[in-house]
Amino acid sequence: MTAYDLYVITDEGLSKGLTHVEIARRAIAGGADVIQLRDKSMSGEELMECAVQIRTLTKEAGVLFIVNDRLDIAIASKADGVHLGQEDIPVKLARPLAPPGFIIGVSAGTLEEALQAERDGADYIGLGPICHTGSKKDAGPVCGFGLITGVKKHVSIPVIVIGGIGPDNAKESISAGADGLAVISAVVSQDDVTGAAKHLKALIKEAKRQKVYEG
Amino acid sequence: MTAYDLYVITDEGLSKGLTHVEIARRAIAGGADVIQLRDKSMSGEELMECAVQIRTLTKEAGVLFIVNDRLDIAIASKADGVHLGQEDIPVKLARPLAPPGFIIGVSAGTLEEALQAERDGADYIGLGPICHTGSKKDAGPVCGFGLITGVKKHVSIPVIVIGGIGPDNAKESISAGADGLAVISAVVSQDDVTGAAKHLKALIKEAKRQKVYEG
Ligand code: NI
Repeated sequence: MTAYDLYVITDEGLSKGLTHVEIARRAIAGGADVIQLRDKSMSGEELMECAVQIRTLTKEAGVLFIVNDRLDIAIASKADGVHLGQEDIPVKLARPLAPPGFIIGVSAGTLEEALQAERDGADYIGLGPICHTGSKKDAGPVCGFGLITGVKKHVSIPVIVIGGIGPDNAKESISAGADGLAVISAVVSQDDVTGAAKHLKALIKEAKRQKVYEG
Repeated sequence: MTAYDLYVITDEGLSKGLTHVEIARRAIAGGADVIQLRDKSMSGEELMECAVQIRTLTKEAGVLFIVNDRLDIAIASKADGVHLGQEDIPVKLARPLAPPGFIIGVSAGTLEEALQAERDGADYIGLGPICHTGSKKDAGPVCGFGLITGVKKHVSIPVIVIGGIGPDNAKESISAGADGLAVISAVVSQDDVTGAAKHLKALIKEAKRQKVYEG
């Protein structure tokens, strides 16, 4: 079964000067299970060049490679799949274009969107945002772990949680039912990208072990 | 053989408040042979919705429908083809994803780019910009019709000219060898889109007739 434990989304803008390819390389070294290439500003040609390079890196490492939004670039670069937001092409229209076994993930912010995504044939759900920055300063983010549990009760495809996820709430996310954690800043924005990925991966593994023991 | 005589590119920004769909409808009524949907700011979902509507209109009218840049949306909307700029996915990578008979047009600004596009398997070339606004005010645009003749000598796929093309230089473009004229503002920005398309179509037809007579 496909493991989505640590799902790292590349974002050059949130990194400390790293390219998509360099973010991917360091995240893979830290144990990322999935790399998603996301860039809303590059031309198709530039994005395609990044995708081809990350495909090579991920293939060597046995890591899943997903392209955000651009189904054509995902297919052309031989990525494992595409991630579609609620503003992207609907999964029902995307599926017939994709080769057999191609992974299509869909963003969902509510139970209704998650159910719809599963009905439409999504292979996994990117559920979130889970955590929101609270109004009180220094109070830290407010997280809705109940949404994870609610969605997990009703859908059978993997649920990857996203939005304010990091080491501080990794355990609660897994306990609430998340199959994997999608992160950007918790890994990409850190000085030591590889170290941040390693730490988070260890927390996820430990939380999953505890869950098995606790039944 | 596919006719590319009058190739109208939708551009909401250059229109007087018309949507892509309304531009397409009016251009078709004026005799457009090809409609290209071009929008660099819409989400995939919005673009897909436009594409599906324009596919219906063009199919009813027997008009070719081409989507700019987004191969995935072109295929998913059952468009006849995609137009790829020099900054988009290379045609060599796009071709294997496309269904049989799918048209792939490629932008070229020079003879070298045109030759490369043909070698890479393009079905037509969008050659331009042909005309540039001159430095002298009121002098009108300066057009390089020699480029058209040069490219036509060396490539065998259709050459559609673009960039400052309109009623003032339609005849010279056809005489120089253009197989079709791609226009935006000469049609889309006019008060009477249908009338502007009709006028331009008549000029193209007349220029092609004269060319045949003149040998
Ligand atoms: Ni020559």
